[in-house]
Amino acid sequence: MTGVSGIGFIGGALDRADALRHDTGALAAALADPAARLLVLDGLLPVADDGLLGWTALADLPAGAQPILLGLDDGGRPHFTALTAGMRVDNAPAMRSPALMALLASLRAGEAATYAAARSVIDWHVRHGFCANCGTATAMFRAGWGRRCDACGTEHFPRVDPVVIMIAEHDGRALLGRGKNWPAGRYSALAGFLEPGESIEEAVAREVAEEAGVVVTDVRYVASQPWPFPSSLMIACIGRAASDVLTIDRNELEDAIWVSRADVRAVLAGEAGPFIAPPPYAIAYNLLTAWAAE
Amino acid sequence: MTGVSGIGFIGGALDRADALRHDTGALAAALADPAARLLVLDGLLPVADDGLLGWTALADLPAGAQPILLGLDDGGRPHFTALTAGMRVDNAPAMRSPALMALLASLRAGEAATYAAARSVIDWHVRHGFCANCGTATAMFRAGWGRRCDACGTEHFPRVDPVVIMIAEHDGRALLGRGKNWPAGRYSALAGFLEPGESIEEAVAREVAEEAGVVVTDVRYVASQPWPFPSSLMIACIGRAASDVLTIDRNELEDAIWVSRADVRAVLAGEAGPFIAPPPYAIAYNLLTAWAAE
Ligand SMILES: [Zn+2]
Ligand SMILES: [Zn+2]
Repeated sequence: MTGVSGIGFIGGALDRADALRHDTGALAAALADPAARLLVLDGLLPVADDGLLGWTALADLPAGAQPILLGLDDGGRPHFTALTAGMRVDNAPAMRSPALMALLASLRAGEAATYAAARSVIDWHVRHGFCANCGTATAMFRAGWGRRCDACGTEHFPRVDPVVIMIAEHDGRALLGRGKNWPAGRYSALAGFLEPGESIEEAVAREVAEEAGVVVTDVRYVASQPWPFPSSLMIACIGRAASDVLTIDRNELEDAIWVSRADVRAVLAGEAGPFIAPPPYAIAYNLLTAWAAE
Repeated sequence: MTGVSGIGFIGGALDRADALRHDTGALAAALADPAARLLVLDGLLPVADDGLLGWTALADLPAGAQPILLGLDDGGRPHFTALTAGMRVDNAPAMRSPALMALLASLRAGEAATYAAARSVIDWHVRHGFCANCGTATAMFRAGWGRRCDACGTEHFPRVDPVVIMIAEHDGRALLGRGKNWPAGRYSALAGFLEPGESIEEAVAREVAEEAGVVVTDVRYVASQPWPFPSSLMIACIGRAASDVLTIDRNELEDAIWVSRADVRAVLAGEAGPFIAPPPYAIAYNLLTAWAAE
């Protein structure tokens, strides 16, 4: 849908069927539909086979589990995930766990998108069981796409945190950085959470200024991606750096380097280079690919 | 910073000074700085004069109020807003109140951005005084840019909700809609909250399909804007509609119409036309302007 292809976690095949979430009768019918499917999860990891997510009959829903409507497939069959009793997310495989990385590398396009939606919404329920407005325990509503507080009436909806991720370019070179405890040699685009009161373009400029001490202008949007760790919207941009003199914030970055297009092309082609590329399901990979092709 | 000019709520003059939020000593020095300024608010409305926000000495902070660091001006002077005891947001002037609209129309570029950041972060504190993870009352930290739960250790950060706002175009015409209870004649770009597990481009396509029954492809990003009612990130896009046959969801829209570039240009020029334009500080205005100029 954008000019950038092969972005991870997009292209899910299910129609979210928002109308069903608001229609108690239709939702009850979907829950009673013998064709209804339930995503198979092992903790927060999917159980995939041959690149496809595993599903079972919704009738297999464990006692005490609450179904969450993921959407309808093109045959109209409802697909659900579930919040199970006592579910934990603090022990879920982190985004850099080998098991998760292998799994994400194996999933077909679109399957990871369905998993991303399920993982993000489950994680939100587990960590948002109480009303931020009054402290009372809340209850799921709208087929899992919200929680309601009966004490004060506040409705809460799943959180999506916008993150800007960007390449600052200067004289044909791109600025990359690495965080603490990253795998040896790994460098990627700088990134940070967008704050209240900022545009995307302002957040890009602020993050690069904070982390690398460089003024950035002429910010261009490139592509976006949902990132389910736990629920970010990654917004990838390219901006123009006024200088290549860096002042690195060592609390944020372990290191930052300038790399040439030739370097980036070599690394993306699997050749040796001055850094190890981010994984292909991360939008940083697509951003580097787009920049290298310019 | 983008190719679109005159966007409301951007261009604030303060440096957010993220490092100060993490440095207890430096923050204490800023709070003790006799030059430190405090934003003057009447409820959640600024008290502006000649297009400029009103400020007073931080020493005027009321008893029981908690300062929130907005940032440093180019002279290094710290600027704060405050969460006052018993502050309410449910009675704040809504985005369509005449008082607020007149005020926003009067503020100089950049001043509205500072106000937007202050209003969004105050609103978040007022409505998020309890830990969503365990229900315990939380306390402000990081100079007002977070809240911490001493009971379970969870750190909470101000929420920003990404919203897609878009023009679907077909054969030289743009799709506009109007919500219930909007001012007579007002039409604007369709919009909706982005959900977990979606890219910007996917959210644009889903919203137009849900609200108007039209398939949209080739989504292009145009511009972004913070929107402090209470804390959205508006992401403006243009997409290509596969058809001009509408199936309007009357729960979401009161009406939807196709308008020509000539119509949009006339309306933006202040002439009579088939609709009344959104206010100039809303990004829908910039989006219409950008589309009309294509
Ligand atoms: Zn409540
Ligand atoms: Zn807690």
